[in-house]
Parts: sequence; structure tokens; C-alpha cells
Amino acid sequence: MVDVTAKTPTIREAHAEAIVACSAPIMAALRDDGVPKGDALAVARIAGIAGAKRTPELLPLAHPIGVHFCAVDLELMDAGVRITSRVKTADRTGIEMEALTAVTVAALALVDMVKGVDRGVSLSDARITYKAGGRSGEWRRETAHNA
Amino acid sequence: MVDVTAKTPTIREAHAEAIVACSAPIMAALRDDGVPKGDALAVARIAGIAGAKRTPELLPLAHPIGVHFCAVDLELMDAGVRITSRVKTADRTGIEMEALTAVTVAALALVDMVKGVDRGVSLSDARITYKAGGRSGEWRRETAHNA
Amino acid sequence: MVDVTAKTPTIREAHAEAIVACSAPIMAALRDDGVPKGDALAVARIAGIAGAKRTPELLPLAHPIGVHFCAVDLELMDAGVRITSRVKTADRTGIEMEALTAVTVAALALVDMVKGVDRGVSLSDARITYKAGGRSGEWRRETAHNA
Amino acid sequence: MVDVTAKTPTIREAHAEAIVACSAPIMAALRDDGVPKGDALAVARIAGIAGAKRTPELLPLAHPIGVHFCAVDLELMDAGVRITSRVKTADRTGIEMEALTAVTVAALALVDMVKGVDRGVSLSDARITYKAGGRSGEWRRETAHNA
Amino acid sequence: MVDVTAKTPTIREAHAEAIVACSAPIMAALRDDGVPKGDALAVARIAGIAGAKRTPELLPLAHPIGVHFCAVDLELMDAGVRITSRVKTADRTGIEMEALTAVTVAALALVDMVKGVDRGVSLSDARITYKAGGRSGEWRRETAHNA
Amino acid sequence: MVDVTAKTPTIREAHAEAIVACSAPIMAALRDDGVPKGDALAVARIAGIAGAKRTPELLPLAHPIGVHFCAVDLELMDAGVRITSRVKTADRTGIEMEALTAVTVAALALVDMVKGVDRGVSLSDARITYKAGGRSGEWRRETAHNA
Repeated sequence: MVDVTAKTPTIREAHAEAIVACSAPIMAALRDDGVPKGDALAVARIAGIAGAKRTPELLPLAHPIGVHFCAVDLELMDAGVRITSRVKTADRTGIEMEALTAVTVAALALVDMVKGVDRGVSLSDARITYKAGGRSGEWRRETAHNA
Repeated sequence: MVDVTAKTPTIREAHAEAIVACSAPIMAALRDDGVPKGDALAVARIAGIAGAKRTPELLPLAHPIGVHFCAVDLELMDAGVRITSRVKTADRTGIEMEALTAVTVAALALVDMVKGVDRGVSLSDARITYKAGGRSGEWRRETAHNA
Repeated sequence: MVDVTAKTPTIREAHAEAIVACSAPIMAALRDDGVPKGDALAVARIAGIAGAKRTPELLPLAHPIGVHFCAVDLELMDAGVRITSRVKTADRTGIEMEALTAVTVAALALVDMVKGVDRGVSLSDARITYKAGGRSGEWRRETAHNA
Repeated sequence: MVDVTAKTPTIREAHAEAIVACSAPIMAALRDDGVPKGDALAVARIAGIAGAKRTPELLPLAHPIGVHFCAVDLELMDAGVRITSRVKTADRTGIEMEALTAVTVAALALVDMVKGVDRGVSLSDARITYKAGGRSGEWRRETAHNA
Repeated sequence: MVDVTAKTPTIREAHAEAIVACSAPIMAALRDDGVPKGDALAVARIAGIAGAKRTPELLPLAHPIGVHFCAVDLELMDAGVRITSRVKTADRTGIEMEALTAVTVAALALVDMVKGVDRGVSLSDARITYKAGGRSGEWRRETAHNA
Repeated sequence: MVDVTAKTPTIREAHAEAIVACSAPIMAALRDDGVPKGDALAVARIAGIAGAKRTPELLPLAHPIGVHFCAVDLELMDAGVRITSRVKTADRTGIEMEALTAVTVAALALVDMVKGVDRGVSLSDARITYKAGGRSGEWRRETAHNA
């Protein structure tokens, strides 16, 4: 674990995105609120936010960090669901892994909700897209997924 | 949550895979055991096994299930790391989500270990590849990732 | 902790209910989907199901138990929200505490969502209402809350 | 989740109370230290303190917060047990939910300890009674439960 | 993780013990119920039982297992506290690590309670003392600690 | 729980050590990387770091604290393994229990890995060896274990 005792608490932010590729029957069920297990998008969103808070439990060398803001959004696309997160902290170290964990756990929860409709669903991409704050400053991924 | 009280405990198995796409500097660091944060592959493997056991905490509607076997393997490829899991249970319901959670959490832990080398690392694919046991029997994904 | 090794796994069920007493402004916000923090009922429902699975972590002497079914429902009443749970297991011991924990944690989550509207919100009642299965058989509370 | 990155860490305090309504046989067992499962009051007190620390795990949209002080007290009354909590933090946001979670989880643990004596035990009230610190300043519930 | 899907659920039992070596001032405080932080023995006992249930979270390759009985006892000796556990399961694999985790976590909690009196306190021994059930049958440590 | 709201966040450090006494067959397996369950030293090291972060969950009256640095090392000796930890925080209270929990959980994980080789393995000593920072300043145990 990196020693962050000497780092200054400052406001830091990170964004991430994930894509869950879904078949037509799953997309139809999501659009019609017809997933047998219940409200799949709400479950995924809440699981993602809770997942962000669990990051230091999931990642052995991650620091515990104050998640001072977290939003997870899900957007229905033609052949899948795009999940995005925005996470902020006023703590000593970056919050990129919390942003990535949020979209990834939301994606897992979405898969869990819809895999009864079609087992072929997959998490096709998950990545950090933006960070700001801290010593290394601002960074933005050049090729955003749905550009 | 689906009612599984009437299902019979039987031996069930699931496999999953995930790909972490890595740049050349990350692949070099992994090959030379030169990741500054430490033994990235061991950390990822252990995080994946621990992650499989946390599935019902991460996924709101997932049943608690006895993880009676779990193996996570990491294989260095040309431009990334392929993570595979094999999970078994003798419990009342399928263990696909545990297999998928194992590879996904292993992938997150790997990203956490190497993102200091190159922030552009991403989880490029994660999916169930095989299941056996239970009422729906055996299933195998037709197009395996590295076929 | 009571020794349950000699008990037979059988199907057991328990129900519980809780009432969150809310002021008129909170009820109006819940009816109009106008809670500033978001979809309060969905958050409470999911927190309740997740809470049922956490019962042995919260209650020091509770046995780990397979939660094989859990449903949490929320119903808007005149001056509050009635939360009910139905929980089932095919395990060695009763599941009443899981049912009670589900409604109680759902109630806490609901309070968390709406306390910004009115801090006076309270959890006015929480209790087991029904159980079946196991050695002591069926039991039903005589005076149900909304009788 | 509300963004609290811009809030100043200050000392904040909250109190809560809960009442567990108990039948005469339960009150007698509690008075005579005769609960078959063991020291019910000590178990409830410790579960309540541990519960306060778990608040952000139980409530999906609650911020992780440093619980810098927590006390839980249990008082035997004529027909029940009154549980009170006092919780303090020097963090960025209020600690009311931690106070309410402390008394509620203590109440659940108490029910778990005594329900073998009488299943009719119930959590008859749980609410925040006091808060201080933060932008909204001091607040005190007008009608305390045992006034 | 070892594959235990083919193992038969049978009743298994394990015992463990740990010694916390304490200075005379700590022993005096424990005897007079004069530990400033509160009832140290009750806290340690409850932490030990809760710790047993957390074994698969703490030990990466340990199987989740149904803790169907757990007792933790603390005995004041001349220059320390002897902690013993008895744990049982009707599950697929041995419960020795749960017994050892119970006494070890109880010892940690005891140290936490008394270290304000004297920081020199130490956990001087922790070990499995007995097991029964399963394929390898009964085993008893030859030289018990307080023989 | 002690009230630490008025304490100043400063850099604090603590070290601890534990000894796992092992038989000759276990030492041989560890030296030859021949433990059947896998890489025992890596598993123990990672479990120890993760364990440090879990301290406030394991110890009922411990404060949540920011673990801002943690290192766990394992050293093969003649008849056992010496585990040491160094932990740092920039938080409001001491981090001694996190250091002690790190070595203890690492020791438990090591026992879990090797107990299949020889069940007689034991945790023969675990203690805080050093602390610095905070009001009471620097402290060092006089008789280090391997002096």
C-alpha cells in the first residue's frame, strides 16, 4: 500500500463508464419494465453506489477513502446499457478505482437481473474516463466509448 | 429474490472469463515482476476468490450460496491479461454470478495494481463461458474469447 | 449461540412489518416522486433485502442462514409508509430475525431518504407477524397493525 | 448521494432512542439476568455500537463517516427497554442516521436475545431526538418519548 | 480453494484456545470490573463469536461454512486471560479455522479494551486444541496449555 | 467508545509482530513453495493488509480510522514464520490495533494454508512493538522477539 499520510486532502473527482451488451429480448424487457426479477435499472444503480463504498474491501491494496459524492446513471442504447459514474472525495488520494468499481458492480447487478432472460449478456467494456484533482491534475480519455 | 426453497441441492459449476487490456509498458512490468505496488497477479487472484464469496453482498437480489470451490487463473497475453474462473457449489441455485464476480473483481484489483503505470488500462470483456448442473443443464458460450 | 447442528433443514417462512410515520410534506413528496435524494421506495426496498442477508453480521448470536427467498414491499398510507417482508429458508433454524431485520433496515433507509424533508420522521413500529415451519409450527400475531 | 466535498469538517452530535416493548416474562428474565441465550443487555449494547459503524453499508445513499464517539445505553422500564444512543463525529456531514441505526440495531439484537421467551416482543418506536453542529445547528424533538 | 462439493455434510466440532498475557495492573482492573473502556470480557466474548462467523471473509481461501454453534469463554488466570472456543457445524468441511479465529479475534478485542491500562499486553499463544468429525476423525492436542 | 472528536489529526505509526510456530514439514513446504493450497506467504500478506482495514469491524469499540499505509512482511525462520507489520495514519487516533490485527490475521491465513500439512501449527506470539505520534509520543517494546 502506498503511503499517503503526507498527501494533502483536496477535492478529487473521477468518472468511469461500462457497457453491458444485451440481446434484443433483454433490451425489450428493460424498455417495457418487464424484467421478471424486478426493476433492473434501480437495482443496478443502487448496487453501483454501494459498490463504490466497498472498493477498499474488494481491492486488497486500496486505501479506505471518504466517498463524498457518488452518482451512477444507466442509459438504454440500441444493443446494450451504458453505465456511467461520477465520484468525488475531499480525501488524501485519488478516487478513480471507486468510479470504476461503481460502474462494474452496477454492471454485475444488471447482469444478475437479466441473465434469466438471456445468459449471453456480457460486460463488454469498463474504464476510467476522467479524473481531476490531486498532484497529477486533470486527465480525460481521448476516445470516449460512444463518441 | 427468486424462491429457491424447493430446489434440490445438487453440484453446479460455472466458468467465466475477463480480459484486462494493457499497454506495452504494463505488460513489460507484469512480465518482469516490476509493478511498483507489488505482486499484481497474486493480488488479483486472491481478490477474485474473495470477491466470489462476496457476490450476495454486491448483488442485492443474489442468494447467499456456499462457494464450495473457486479457482482464479491469470494468463499474460500479448496486449492484456486473460482472467478465468471456475466455481462450484453443492447448493440450491446456480453459481454463474459468483464466477463472473470472481473474474471481474480480479480484473478491478489488477487495474488497481497497474494503473500507476498507465491509467488507460481497461476491462475490455467479462462474461460467463460455461455452466453445468441444475434444471437447465449444461451450457457453453459458442464463441470463446481467445478462440 | 444455540446449537442447531441436530436440527433438520426444513422449509421455514416468516413475515414482519414496520411503520414509518411521516408528516404530510413527506407523504406528498413520496406520492409525487419528489424526494430530492431520489427514488426513496426503491432504495428502501433494496436496502431491506440486502439487510435480511446481513442479519448474522448485525446480531452477534444469530446463526448464518441461507436466505432462500426475500420480498420487501412498501405501501403508502395516510400518514406513513407500511413496510412488509416475507422471507423463506430451507435451513436449520427459523428466519424470523431476517424478516424483522429486512423491514427495519428498509425503514432506516427510507428515513435516510426523506429526513431532509422533515427530521421528525420516525420508525413507529416493527414486529414479526407470522412464522411457519420448524418444531414450533405456525404462529400468527393476533392484532395485525392495519387490522 | 449528496455532494459533501465542499462542507467543512466540524464537530457534530446526534442522539436517538428506541423502545422495545416486552411482556412481563421477558422483563422478569431481563431483571434476573435469566435470559437463556446470555447477557442480553451487553449483547444489544455492543451490537448497537457496531451497527452505528455499519450505517453506510446498510443505507445505500449514506456517506461513509468517521464515528468518533458512540455510546449506547439500555434502561429497563415497566413494560419494555428504552435504548438511547449518543454519537459524535468531526466529519463533513451529520451523524443522525448513525445514532438512529445504533438504537435500531441494538433493539434488533435485544429482540433476538429474548424472542425465545416470548415471540410477541416488538420495536415500538425509534427516532432521532437531538442533533447539534453543522449548518442547520441545534434541534431537539419536542415530545421526548418518556416525558 | 479445495473442492468440497463431493464431501458429505456431517456434524463437525473444533475447539481452540488463546492466552492474552497481562500485567498485574490489567489483571486488577479486569478483576474489579475497572477497565475504563467498559466490560472487557463481554466485549471480547461477543467479538469472538462474531469473528467466527467472519472467518471466510478474513481468510482468502477458506470456504463459507454454516457456524451452527459457537461458544467463547474467558477465564482470568494469574497473569493473563485464557480464552477458549467450541464451534460446531453440520456442513461439508472442518471448522477448525472458525474455532481459531474466534479465540484470536476475542484476544484482539480484549487487547483493545485493556491496552490503555498497559500497552505491553500480548497475545501469547493461540491454537487449535481439538477436532472431531469429518474424514480424519478425532484429534486432540497432546500438551494442552494449562495442563 | 472513547470520544476523539477533539483530537487533532496527526501522522501516527505503529508496528507489530507475530510468530507462527511451524513443524519441519511445514517449513520445508514453505521453503520449496510446496504448500498444496498455493502461495501461502502471498495469501497471508494480502490477508494481513485486508485485515488491518477491517479492524473497526472486528473490534466493537475501535474507531473507524483511515489506514493510510500498511505493509506486512513474512520471514522464514528456523522453526516458524515471523510476520511484521508497519501501519500509518494521518487520523485522530492511534493505529496500534490495526498493526496488531494485520499480523494476527496474516497469521490466521498462514495457519489456514498450512494446517493440511500439520494441524499442530500455532500462533505463538503477537504483540505491538512500536508506536509513534499522538499525545503519548514514541514507545518501543524493550525485548523484541528475535533480539
